[in-house]
Amino acid sequence: MVKESRVDVLIIGAGPSGLMCANALAGAGVNVKIIDNRPTGVTAGHADGIQPRTIEVLQSYGLAEPLLRDGGQMYLCAFYNPDSKGGIERTARTPDVTAPTARYPFKITIGQSRIEALFMDSMKSRGVTVDRPIVPSSLEISEDPEELLDPSSYPVKVVLDYIPPSDRAPEQEIVRAKFVVGADGAHSWVRKTLGISMDGEQTKYIWGVIDFTPDTDFPDIRNRSAIHSKNGSCMVIPREGDKVRFYLQMSEQDVMDPKSGKLDSRKVTPEKLLEVAGKTLYPYKVDKKEVEWSSIYIIGQRVASRFSANERVFIAGDACHTHSPKAGQGMNASMNDTHNLAWKLAQVIRGRADISLLKTYELERKKYAEDLIEFDRQWSGLFSGKAKTSHSKEGVSHDQFLRVFKSFGGFSSGISVHYVPSAIVDSTHQTCAPSIIIGQRMLPQVFVRAADARPVDIQDMILSDTRFKLLLFVGLLTSEQLTKVRRLAEELQTPTSFLQRYGYPAQGRAQSMFDIIPIAAGNKDDVNFLDLPPIFRTHWSKVLMDDIDVTGRLGGGAYNRFGINEKEITMVVVRPDGYVGMIAPSTALESMDRNLERAYGL
Amino acid sequence: MVKESRVDVLIIGAGPSGLMCANALAGAGVNVKIIDNRPTGVTAGHADGIQPRTIEVLQSYGLAEPLLRDGGQMYLCAFYNPDSKGGIERTARTPDVTAPTARYPFKITIGQSRIEALFMDSMKSRGVTVDRPIVPSSLEISEDPEELLDPSSYPVKVVLDYIPPSDRAPEQEIVRAKFVVGADGAHSWVRKTLGISMDGEQTKYIWGVIDFTPDTDFPDIRNRSAIHSKNGSCMVIPREGDKVRFYLQMSEQDVMDPKSGKLDSRKVTPEKLLEVAGKTLYPYKVDKKEVEWSSIYIIGQRVASRFSANERVFIAGDACHTHSPKAGQGMNASMNDTHNLAWKLAQVIRGRADISLLKTYELERKKYAEDLIEFDRQWSGLFSGKAKTSHSKEGVSHDQFLRVFKSFGGFSSGISVHYVPSAIVDSTHQTCAPSIIIGQRMLPQVFVRAADARPVDIQDMILSDTRFKLLLFVGLLTSEQLTKVRRLAEELQTPTSFLQRYGYPAQGRAQSMFDIIPIAAGNKDDVNFLDLPPIFRTHWSKVLMDDIDVTGRLGGGAYNRFGINEKEITMVVVRPDGYVGMIAPSTALESMDRNLERAYGL
Repeated sequence: MVKESRVDVLIIGAGPSGLMCANALAGAGVNVKIIDNRPTGVTAGHADGIQPRTIEVLQSYGLAEPLLRDGGQMYLCAFYNPDSKGGIERTARTPDVTAPTARYPFKITIGQSRIEALFMDSMKSRGVTVDRPIVPSSLEISEDPEELLDPSSYPVKVVLDYIPPSDRAPEQEIVRAKFVVGADGAHSWVRKTLGISMDGEQTKYIWGVIDFTPDTDFPDIRNRSAIHSKNGSCMVIPREGDKVRFYLQMSEQDVMDPKSGKLDSRKVTPEKLLEVAGKTLYPYKVDKKEVEWSSIYIIGQRVASRFSANERVFIAGDACHTHSPKAGQGMNASMNDTHNLAWKLAQVIRGRADISLLKTYELERKKYAEDLIEFDRQWSGLFSGKAKTSHSKEGVSHDQFLRVFKSFGGFSSGISVHYVPSAIVDSTHQTCAPSIIIGQRMLPQVFVRAADARPVDIQDMILSDTRFKLLLFVGLLTSEQLTKVRRLAEELQTPTSFLQRYGYPAQGRAQSMFDIIPIAAGNKDDVNFLDLPPIFRTHWSKVLMDDIDVTGRLGGGAYNRFGINEKEITMVVVRPDGYVGMIAPSTALESMDRNLERAYGL
Repeated sequence: MVKESRVDVLIIGAGPSGLMCANALAGAGVNVKIIDNRPTGVTAGHADGIQPRTIEVLQSYGLAEPLLRDGGQMYLCAFYNPDSKGGIERTARTPDVTAPTARYPFKITIGQSRIEALFMDSMKSRGVTVDRPIVPSSLEISEDPEELLDPSSYPVKVVLDYIPPSDRAPEQEIVRAKFVVGADGAHSWVRKTLGISMDGEQTKYIWGVIDFTPDTDFPDIRNRSAIHSKNGSCMVIPREGDKVRFYLQMSEQDVMDPKSGKLDSRKVTPEKLLEVAGKTLYPYKVDKKEVEWSSIYIIGQRVASRFSANERVFIAGDACHTHSPKAGQGMNASMNDTHNLAWKLAQVIRGRADISLLKTYELERKKYAEDLIEFDRQWSGLFSGKAKTSHSKEGVSHDQFLRVFKSFGGFSSGISVHYVPSAIVDSTHQTCAPSIIIGQRMLPQVFVRAADARPVDIQDMILSDTRFKLLLFVGLLTSEQLTKVRRLAEELQTPTSFLQRYGYPAQGRAQSMFDIIPIAAGNKDDVNFLDLPPIFRTHWSKVLMDDIDVTGRLGGGAYNRFGINEKEITMVVVRPDGYVGMIAPSTALESMDRNLERAYGL
C-alpha cells in the first residue's frame, strides 16, 4: 500500500531558496516537509556571493555569524582596462558596496555548500531534515473553490517517488499539502507541471567559471576585480581562505563544437580556463595551486510569467528567474523570494491572516525579478562588451562602466528593494518619518537600551520570528508627553485595537503577532524606563533610547535622521520580513485598525 | 604498586586561574595535567565580573565570543546617596569603564561556571580534561642545583591521592613534574606546603552577597549601582539574563553569634539578605522571583610573600592574593597571573628560553598584586564607610567617592597594568613610538588589510599562541622607503639576526617564536602588498595599512596616534601575552639582537 501523509507545506528542492523556506517555517512551528532529487547537497562551486541585504536577512534568523567569521569579505572593486602595451592596468579601486545605508559594507563569499549546511543545521535543531533522493511524479490542485479558500484544507496532492538508496523508503508516497513551494531550480519540474512559461531570452555571451587557489602576482587577487582586456573580460571574486573564483569570457572557438555548433563542455577543462585567464590578465601571471571546481554557461535572462497557482503552489528562486551569475545576485534573489513567502504562509496556516495575503508574494517578488533581469541585461552587456581603448573607439569606456556600477549600487547590494504599495505596504502617513521608507527594509540604526545603556542595532531586535514589530517612537518623555503615551496605552488596551486582536507578548498568548519596541528620545543618564506604561515594556531589554553610547561613537540622532517629531508619538510597523509596512501617528489609530484588517483580513 | 607518571606541568586547582593556565599550555602543545579536589566545578555564584582587559585576553585565546553573546554587559555605574526623607536618591550615572583605550567599553558579568566551562571545552578539543576529585598529599623539590637549572629535568615530585568516586583511580599516584602551578585558592595547600606567608590583614567589614532574579522598582537594576544609604552600603551588579547580584554591607548583629563572637552563617539566610537590601534601597522595593546563591564574607587583604619556589613551583590566583570582591578584580587578577606565566613556561619547556625567564613572573605579578591590594584598601574603605549626609558631616562624600572611582578607572578595567622594566621589558627606544607604552598591553587599533581592505583590530592578530609579534611599521612605501625596507629584510636574513635564531613562519620551522606583521602608512586605493619583500608577507592577510576603511568610520591615523615616523622603520615587539616588550628603530638591529639574547638567553 502506498504511504499517505499530510503536511502544511511541502517544499520541492533543497537549494538555498528551498532551505531558507524550510528553516523559516520550521522556526515558526509549521509542519513542513522538504525533499530533493539529489542524494547529497552541492559540495563545491555554484553560487557563492552573499550581498549586504542578504547578510542582514540571515542575521535576522541568527545565521550570519558563521558566515561573517569564515567567509571572504569583499570591500573593494578594482577596475582593470587595456594598457598601451597589450596588457592590462588598474584604472581605479572603489568600494564594492556603494549603498550608504548598508549595515555590512561588504559582500561575503563562501561556498554554497556552507550556506546550505547552515540552514540544515538550524532546521535539524527543530527536527526538520531534507528527505532525499526523491522525485515528485505528479501534482494536482483541487478545483473546489471552497476548499481552495479554506486555509485548513489540503488541496494539493503530490506523488513522490523515492529513489534508492533513500533511507526512509517507501517506494512511493502520496503527500497532501496545504501549500507547495517549488524551489527546484532553473529546470523546475513544478513550474513545468503548472505550465508556467519563462519570458525572456538567451544571450550570446559564453562564460567559464573556475574556483581555485591561485599562485599569481596580480595585485588585486584579494579584491573583486572587473577586468576588461583586449582578450575578453574577467571577473575576479576572492573567496574564503585563499581561494578565488574567476568568471572568464570565452570565445566561440574556445567552447563550441565546430560540427554540431553546440557547447562542448569537454573542451573547457580547468587548464583551458587558466590559459584564457593568463591571456586576459597579461602581463600578470596566473597559475594554480589547486583547482576546486569549474563550469561553463551561456547567460539566459528570463522571468516566469506567474509565481503561483491559486496561491496554493508557488515557485521560487531559479525556478522563477535565471540570469547571469556575475553580479552575484542569483542565490540572493532566491533566498529573498522565500524569505518574503515564509512568514505569509505561517500566518495564513495559523489562521492569523486571510489566504489573500499570499497574493502579495507574486506582486512583490515578480516585480523584483523583472528589475533584476533589467539590471543584469545592462550589467552583463557592458561587462561582456569590448573595452574601449586608444586603438578601438568602439566599446565600453571605463567611465560608462563605472557609472553603471555605481548607479546600480543599491540594487546589487539588495538594499534598495522597494515593495510596491499594496494592502500590506501602506504609505499613507509617510510624512511622519520621511526617511523610513515604507516598502523598504527597516534601516539599521544603533540605539542604546534605556535600562542598561547597551548599544543595540534595531535590526537585531527585528528578528525573522513571524512577528510584526511595532516601533513606538514615544518622543521626549516630558510629563506632557508621558500623558500622551499613557493615553495611547489605554487606547491600545481596548478590545477593538489591533494590538488586542492580533496579540502582543504581555498577554501571554502563544504566537502573538506583534512585538512592541518603544524608542524614547532623550538622555541615557536620566531616563527611567519604568516611567513607560507596562504594556510598552514587555521586558526591560526592549525599551530603547535614541542616544549615543558611552564611547560617544555609536548611536544617537535617529529622530533627526528619520525626520520624526520628538513631541509626537509615531508608530512604525515593520513586517516580519524586516520591511516597513506602515507608519502612523498615534492619532490615526482607527485608520490603522482598519488598514490592518483590510491587509490581514481578521 | 603506586602508579608513577611524568608531566611537563602539573596544575593543582581547576578554578579560573588553573584553567587559564591549562588551556594556554594545552594550546602550546605542552604536556599538562590539571587536578582538582572537588568532584565538580562550581555551579552557581562565586566570581562573575570580567573586566575589559580580561575580555581582550580571552579574545586573544578565541574565547571571548560566547561571553560577549551571553553575558551581561555593564556600561553605566549609578551612584545613590541618602536623600532628605530617609531613603536614597540617584546622584549621578557615569560610564562604568573610564579607561579611554579599552577595546570593550563595558564589563561582562556571567557565572564563574560558564567561564570554567569555556576553558574546559577549549582544553578538551586539545585532549586535556580535569582529573578530579584528587588531593595532593606531598610535594618535594630537588635540591640538586644542576637539576634545577636543567629545563628538561623533572625536579618536582608530587604525591596525589585519588578520592572515590574518582573514575580513573589508582589510589595514589606519584607525579614527577618539570613545573608545578598551585592555583588552589585562598587556602592554598601548595602555598602552605612551600611555607610561603601571606602579608596583610583582615578588615572589619562584613559583606553578604546574593544572586537572584529581582522584582523591583529600582530604576538602575540593570546598571552597576553603588549605593550609600544610612542603613549601610550596597553594590548592585546586573548579571546575565534577568539575574542580579547584590553585595550588602552587614552589621555585626546581623551576622555574629553573640556568644562565640564568630560569624554565624546560619543567621544569614537569603531572606535576611533581602531584608537588609529592602532597608538599604528604601524607598525602592526589592523582592525576589528566584534566589540562585548567597554567601557571606569578611574582607581580607593579603599578598603572598613569594610567588615561586626555585622557579619550579609557582602559586597563582587567590593563592597569592585575597581581597574584596566588590571591585570585580579577583577572577581577573587570577586569570591574568597564569596568562603571564603560561607562555614563559611553554618557551622554557621547548628549550627556546632560559629558565631564568621564569623569574619575571613574580617580578611582574607580585607588584601587580600589591597595587591591587592598595586599590582595594582605598576602594572598600570608601565603599564600606558611612555616607556624608546633611545630618552627618563625617563620612564619605559623593565627590570623594567619585574621584576615587574615576582615578582608579585604568586599574579597575585592567587596562593600565604596566610591567616594570626588566630583561623582557626594554624601554630604551620608547621615543620611537611614544604612545605605545613599553610594559603595557598593545593598544587596540583598527587597520585595514592591504590585500583586501578588510578592517581588522591589531589585537586580533596578536593571538596568545606563544609567539612574539614583530609589528613592523614600514612607513610610507615610497621608492626610497622601499629601499630601506629591502635592506632591513636582507639584514634580518643574516643567520645571526634574532629572526633567524628564534624563527619566523616563512622558514617553515615548527614553533617559530616570531610572527611578522608589517604595517604600512598610505592609502588602500593604491597600495600593492606585493611590493614588500617576501620575508615580510608570510601570508597576504598579514600585511596591514594605516588607513580608514571603506565606510570612513574605522581605522586610520595610527602612525600619528602612536607618534611613529612614516619615513623610518619602527619595530614593535609584542610579547606572547600581548604586552609590549621592546620598541626599536631599524637602525638598532644589533642592540635588539643583544637584548633579546640577554632576555631569553639563547
